[in-house]
Amino acid sequence: MSHTQFRTHWTEALVKGDIGLHQLPATLSRKEASRVRREALQRITGSPLGTIGDYTFDPQSAKCENFIGAIQIPVGVAGPLRVNGRAITAREPVFAPLATTEGALIASVSRGCSALRAAGGAVVRVDDVGITRAPVFRSSGIIQTQAFLAWVHTHFDEIKQLCERDSHHLTLQDIAPATVGCTIYLRFRFNSVDAMGMNMASIACDRAITELISPATGVPCISISGNYCTDKKPAMVNFLNGRGKRIYAEACLSADIVRDILKTDAASLCEVQYRKNLLGSAMAGAIGCNAHHANILAAFFIATGQDVAQVAESAMGITCIEDRGNGALYASILLPDTPLGTVGGGTGLGTQREALALMGIVPGAKAPGVDTLRLAEILGALVLAGELSIMAAQASHHLVQAHVQLGR
Amino acid sequence: MSHTQFRTHWTEALVKGDIGLHQLPATLSRKEASRVRREALQRITGSPLGTIGDYTFDPQSAKCENFIGAIQIPVGVAGPLRVNGRAITAREPVFAPLATTEGALIASVSRGCSALRAAGGAVVRVDDVGITRAPVFRSSGIIQTQAFLAWVHTHFDEIKQLCERDSHHLTLQDIAPATVGCTIYLRFRFNSVDAMGMNMASIACDRAITELISPATGVPCISISGNYCTDKKPAMVNFLNGRGKRIYAEACLSADIVRDILKTDAASLCEVQYRKNLLGSAMAGAIGCNAHHANILAAFFIATGQDVAQVAESAMGITCIEDRGNGALYASILLPDTPLGTVGGGTGLGTQREALALMGIVPGAKAPGVDTLRLAEILGALVLAGELSIMAAQASHHLVQAHVQLGR
Amino acid sequence: MSHTQFRTHWTEALVKGDIGLHQLPATLSRKEASRVRREALQRITGSPLGTIGDYTFDPQSAKCENFIGAIQIPVGVAGPLRVNGRAITAREPVFAPLATTEGALIASVSRGCSALRAAGGAVVRVDDVGITRAPVFRSSGIIQTQAFLAWVHTHFDEIKQLCERDSHHLTLQDIAPATVGCTIYLRFRFNSVDAMGMNMASIACDRAITELISPATGVPCISISGNYCTDKKPAMVNFLNGRGKRIYAEACLSADIVRDILKTDAASLCEVQYRKNLLGSAMAGAIGCNAHHANILAAFFIATGQDVAQVAESAMGITCIEDRGNGALYASILLPDTPLGTVGGGTGLGTQREALALMGIVPGAKAPGVDTLRLAEILGALVLAGELSIMAAQASHHLVQAHVQLGR
Amino acid sequence: MSHTQFRTHWTEALVKGDIGLHQLPATLSRKEASRVRREALQRITGSPLGTIGDYTFDPQSAKCENFIGAIQIPVGVAGPLRVNGRAITAREPVFAPLATTEGALIASVSRGCSALRAAGGAVVRVDDVGITRAPVFRSSGIIQTQAFLAWVHTHFDEIKQLCERDSHHLTLQDIAPATVGCTIYLRFRFNSVDAMGMNMASIACDRAITELISPATGVPCISISGNYCTDKKPAMVNFLNGRGKRIYAEACLSADIVRDILKTDAASLCEVQYRKNLLGSAMAGAIGCNAHHANILAAFFIATGQDVAQVAESAMGITCIEDRGNGALYASILLPDTPLGTVGGGTGLGTQREALALMGIVPGAKAPGVDTLRLAEILGALVLAGELSIMAAQASHHLVQAHVQLGR
Repeated sequence: MSHTQFRTHWTEALVKGDIGLHQLPATLSRKEASRVRREALQRITGSPLGTIGDYTFDPQSAKCENFIGAIQIPVGVAGPLRVNGRAITAREPVFAPLATTEGALIASVSRGCSALRAAGGAVVRVDDVGITRAPVFRSSGIIQTQAFLAWVHTHFDEIKQLCERDSHHLTLQDIAPATVGCTIYLRFRFNSVDAMGMNMASIACDRAITELISPATGVPCISISGNYCTDKKPAMVNFLNGRGKRIYAEACLSADIVRDILKTDAASLCEVQYRKNLLGSAMAGAIGCNAHHANILAAFFIATGQDVAQVAESAMGITCIEDRGNGALYASILLPDTPLGTVGGGTGLGTQREALALMGIVPGAKAPGVDTLRLAEILGALVLAGELSIMAAQASHHLVQAHVQLGR
Repeated sequence: MSHTQFRTHWTEALVKGDIGLHQLPATLSRKEASRVRREALQRITGSPLGTIGDYTFDPQSAKCENFIGAIQIPVGVAGPLRVNGRAITAREPVFAPLATTEGALIASVSRGCSALRAAGGAVVRVDDVGITRAPVFRSSGIIQTQAFLAWVHTHFDEIKQLCERDSHHLTLQDIAPATVGCTIYLRFRFNSVDAMGMNMASIACDRAITELISPATGVPCISISGNYCTDKKPAMVNFLNGRGKRIYAEACLSADIVRDILKTDAASLCEVQYRKNLLGSAMAGAIGCNAHHANILAAFFIATGQDVAQVAESAMGITCIEDRGNGALYASILLPDTPLGTVGGGTGLGTQREALALMGIVPGAKAPGVDTLRLAEILGALVLAGELSIMAAQASHHLVQAHVQLGR
Repeated sequence: MSHTQFRTHWTEALVKGDIGLHQLPATLSRKEASRVRREALQRITGSPLGTIGDYTFDPQSAKCENFIGAIQIPVGVAGPLRVNGRAITAREPVFAPLATTEGALIASVSRGCSALRAAGGAVVRVDDVGITRAPVFRSSGIIQTQAFLAWVHTHFDEIKQLCERDSHHLTLQDIAPATVGCTIYLRFRFNSVDAMGMNMASIACDRAITELISPATGVPCISISGNYCTDKKPAMVNFLNGRGKRIYAEACLSADIVRDILKTDAASLCEVQYRKNLLGSAMAGAIGCNAHHANILAAFFIATGQDVAQVAESAMGITCIEDRGNGALYASILLPDTPLGTVGGGTGLGTQREALALMGIVPGAKAPGVDTLRLAEILGALVLAGELSIMAAQASHHLVQAHVQLGR
Repeated sequence: MSHTQFRTHWTEALVKGDIGLHQLPATLSRKEASRVRREALQRITGSPLGTIGDYTFDPQSAKCENFIGAIQIPVGVAGPLRVNGRAITAREPVFAPLATTEGALIASVSRGCSALRAAGGAVVRVDDVGITRAPVFRSSGIIQTQAFLAWVHTHFDEIKQLCERDSHHLTLQDIAPATVGCTIYLRFRFNSVDAMGMNMASIACDRAITELISPATGVPCISISGNYCTDKKPAMVNFLNGRGKRIYAEACLSADIVRDILKTDAASLCEVQYRKNLLGSAMAGAIGCNAHHANILAAFFIATGQDVAQVAESAMGITCIEDRGNGALYASILLPDTPLGTVGGGTGLGTQREALALMGIVPGAKAPGVDTLRLAEILGALVLAGELSIMAAQASHHLVQAHVQLGR
């Protein structure tokens, strides 16, 4: 059979439903298989998939089953941004890529960047909390639960050794337990250097449980994830204890900056902060209080190959804006739960790699951990920029409206 | 100046910092401007942007300032999925596009689709809650607050007329107030047919406030969003009252399906449901209780041009799995807060349009609202598939481990 | 047998364990039975119960099984308080009883009352939300769930009639459903006039379910309470939708009042409000944001015969303090969920009846509902007084400390 | 002036409003002052206060300003209860006092006690988490925040020494920080032996801050409580990290017990647990998941002289009920946040002291900490009893209803 015949054969098999999308033979390259799938799907549904098929990365690098191509998301650049962190200084301008389909987002963040630039840059600090995984166990009851926790405490070093056995890049930090009757959650916390680390952490936990913890204690693990981790869900355990990076960013803005760049004034901005972010979030029963952290997080996660589903947990941040007298403001943000990586996941794909490199992040060029710290610091400043700008827009509109009312 | 010279001129201006990224002249087409930006950024940072520049959609359709190109995200297909809804029946196989960089996700969801297929398809129903926007106002105190609410109640029809004036596709459903002292939140709820509707809703609210509510009552609006909406934040007001679409999906799985496709048994799956989703989420202080709704939501949102930042609110869902005796199971999911659209946002971009068409969604072909209803129904079934499969994986591992333990 | 012999006989039976505490014969009066129990317990445990046995109310009025006597809690009076409500005006001074064992509480609340008096009294308004009960049902799945909800909607009048059949004091307001798959919660909301109403509501729901809803629909009720009511638990469904009375209170305080009575200044008080109530509560993952609503609620509930366990839900309130320029302040509180009654529960006991009468609440003297409205208005003003005073104490200490620091 | 004249003089002064309720002269004994206040209030309001004035404790022991007498709350006894703890064994029957005005509560808890007795008693374990106080500080920004935290870490021993200087009964355990920008919360955690400890903790914190932390760092304390403690508010920081005692209780119930004492069956009880406690609480956005912990907590707190306002935080517990096959059940409760004391607060009042002694708690008789541990263990078992009984009642009603339906 010629190549074409071969492809046609398998396309037919798919169309007829003789095989499933995942049952194409390994002799077809990933690129060819994606083509076969596209052709079959086009025939089944009558819909063209040509644009999806027009991708530029190496299909081998796509961690995606039943692969058919790529979705393209527009990307723009916010900045230049100035960041005073540990892995970056304000002397180095940053152009931050944001992939979004929401009009005005990048313009708004860029305005925030201007304000931060005028203020000498954002100060950013990052706590490297680490990635967490919390398997759930079932004991016979409270007595065995206590004995189990004591055993885990005593055998921490062995557990740590097992967890770290197969990777130089994973270090177990601690194990925080939570129990209720016969149910036990062990929240393992790992440093995973430049990887986001969720997979490594799961594998490490699994090894420790299967090879050591359960055999030694007789306490079975019910699920490798007990939702006390917690991955990709909004939950107070992450908000309070952190996950991934915990990022703090701040800046002091003079009255001039507030007036000339943000087009508002301190009092108006503080009132928006109060009635919207603080009181409105309390009234709404929100976790965290911010204006639109999720917008910047999602756009940045997509652009830089992060796990976009983690927006679900990362969006629980806090924004503060405080009057400092004479029209000046203090603004800060807290991102308590920001899983990030510069290797693994989608970071190796063509466009994502370029997006990272644009910010000076090229795997292997710096000491371990520095790249991801840098990414976190940039993200913190970006979120601060985004918050300042959107809240200023809302505050200035208030100003406009106030004028309208006065004028009536 | 030749075209090339013109581009070079502006590239220089950007490199020197004479102008900002957003200050390129309108005489440059969007495509040329993106090229100029890429060239300037490459010269400033030394990083190539060629792959980002290699996009296929019409740059005019990209709602993205300082545009430089596209991020490509691998997309695969889960399914075929069978859905018993209002806008789709189980006779029509659905191939669902998921854009992700998480290995195993699509394989897992596909396995869930197999289980649902074997069960005759998922039953899905959708409440069209509508998009919400809640401006915040400041009165002089409780007395004026009450008078204001009474005024809004009395003038609902006028407010509605104003909100709906400029769009055939926006209908004000109701206004739900929440107040605390002198602070008033009015949660406007709109039907926006096939658009997600956030922008339309904001514009409509703004018009009603500026032209009617504030002038007539003398009560100023402090911010067009008071965080009681709430857009892109995890909050109980959305969980309880819904937002966008509220989606219910369910299926009954026989013992055979559980054993042969999900590779586990009813008891194990129910125990994972109990100790992880129910108890674990309660212990973690989560909003909602599910295994990984966010994974499917994010991958589907990216593939279909939704606003990905809304994963922050959509991930608060609930998963139920219940023993039905004789090894059979009942499984259901609830997505209380799912803003969705099939027009606007990123839905018009080339690859996203193809992804929608793959599922039979071609704007204009059906009655208003049907496309988005169909999208919601497919999403509900997909999330159910994803939950069943991942929880089965965790449960079956538990089975394996149980065997290991028994064998020691 | 003489009376004494009879008592001795039963005391012996209890001591020997021949009968349980609840198995004394009905021929013993409640008073005698309590004496027998005390004597038996004293013999079993060696502990005297004489003080507990020294109570003054009619034991028949004590809704308390295995009754042995009374716990005495010290009660003091805060005020006079001035309240501008619907059922009370500022012309009428209120002396509010608070039963507490926390030193300084009444002194502090009284200071708050002084501040409110100086400000012309607190403005208070009350929404009569009503008591709620939410039974949980199990359907066969989504389809039956929807049919069931439709049936309930259509038969609302019949359900209402059944609910209201046996009481002139109970009116069904509405039924708000919440569903997830095959699980259905119907949140019945009742007006119960001057009773807190939980029992009446439960009985009414039970009747409607047993006689009408379940027989007609074939959908069984799993539990008369599905925790979506929710009684005596902190939960957002109550915070957002209210329960019992929703109480708003406010006052404007001049700079003089803040300085002379509260011994602090506007800026300090606003900073405590910001960093403690608003930001601190957000950081702590609290429902609501206040300083110590629970203190006033518990002391007032005990004094006036309310159901003290409902402090669990009533303590989710919000306190606002806002700078109004020139040293003046605006302060308000919101109690979203305050079940209250002036008949039933503990309101008929001797000391509690006196405590109510002290505030002009004598059952039967006023139009239905007015007594409880009055009680709610007084409570709202009291909570406001309590918040102002404790926060001022914290703020003034901050002032002191600031001076200390300046002086070093 | 005779005694009578003296009293009359001051009564007049109160009635005329010449003095406030707190301005009676110190020459009047506490008893006399309370009489003067009662007489004045009776004359002002026309309401008698004789029953309130008929109290039996020593008025000096009442920590209550503007004291007028006592509120009497009926108290009954639940039990005998059997508890397998550290400070109590199942051989020793416990008669637990509950002060309540809710009919059926004690009968219901007593039934639960019977079930636990039949099961050999409840197993209870207690973590002595300790009382917490979290002052809030304001730094100049992130940099100073980090320096401040480092300083606190380095000077922990000095802080500890200061905190513990004036009391043998207070030990600082640790200080857990939480920060957001320039706002810093330090959550001090203390062991306070047999006292609930809130006052001691506040005084200790204040001393450490005033004498050491603020002077040395230049960082002012804004409020001694920053709501991150958190006292008397429902908040996740307490739920997750605990406060006071964290109490675990459990029991295994045979099919006979479930049928004969609880009048239901395992399947029905588990379904109530599932649809009400687990799913219903998630749907309601509750913190914790239980049926009526607050009822037992409030009644026990009142009876034993605890701070009743702390019901606001203690009611966030979890109840688990699990099927163990053959009709048997495993049941457990978790009380994550239970401030308790056997000295201080209301524990020294006459009736409360008797209530404590009834359970074998007589201050000074046992080693430090044992009394309060015992109290916690009894409370844990009581709450478990209360949960089992109420849920069985709801489940059995379901059974009845099921029969009714079957019979129609």
